Amino acid sequence: MTTISKDNKVVTLVNVFTVESENQQKLVDLLVEATEKTMKNVSGFVSANIHKSLDGVRVTNYAQWRRREDFEAMLKNPEATAHMKPIMEIATFDAHLYEVVESMSVS
Amino acid sequence: MTTISKDNKVVTLVNVFTVESENQQKLVDLLVEATEKTMKNVSGFVSANIHKSLDGVRVTNYAQWRRREDFEAMLKNPEATAHMKPIMEIATFDAHLYEVVESMSVS
Repeated sequence: MTTISKDNKVVTLVNVFTVESENQQKLVDLLVEATEKTMKNVSGFVSANIHKSLDGVRVTNYAQWRRREDFEAMLKNPEATAHMKPIMEIATFDAHLYEVVESMSVS
Repeated sequence: MTTISKDNKVVTLVNVFTVESENQQKLVDLLVEATEKTMKNVSGFVSANIHKSLDGVRVTNYAQWRRREDFEAMLKNPEATAHMKPIMEIATFDAHLYEVVESMSVS
């Protein structure tokens, strides 16, 4: 289970992939495989949470890394970036790093 | 605190706002105000989590609603949609509803 809180000592990656509906499940499978086989073992990885849009045209990865430097080091790791090749054949993405500034929920 | 899990009985809204850096904090303030004043009292609201991108050009709301129908009813609620007017003057957005399909974390 992943938690979202201002107090978490993490940096958050929100990566929104745009995909054709017929490739949505394939993209999910590729992201799960990349996480299980490689990302989980990369230093600083905290969590990855794969979301499938109900309209079929987005897949979003809500991921947490210990520090920004850990995420940036992963981007230079050939084993990690190799996973992006088949993903880029079926999707585009918009990725940004974030800090949580407010978390509000019903009590 | 918000939790992400396949077992949560929620639908997830990921709303990625694009904004000029100089308006990023203003957008955060508007989203927090909208949530505190109105959304929290709307039937079916579960959580809203406001994220500020480190590069200054995105604000993402990771929100949870009990059911898709609750979110759709909110979109027809004039008090709720009134909050969108000042937001739309400084930002564009890409919003989709999601289900969590995989949550992977370091143990």
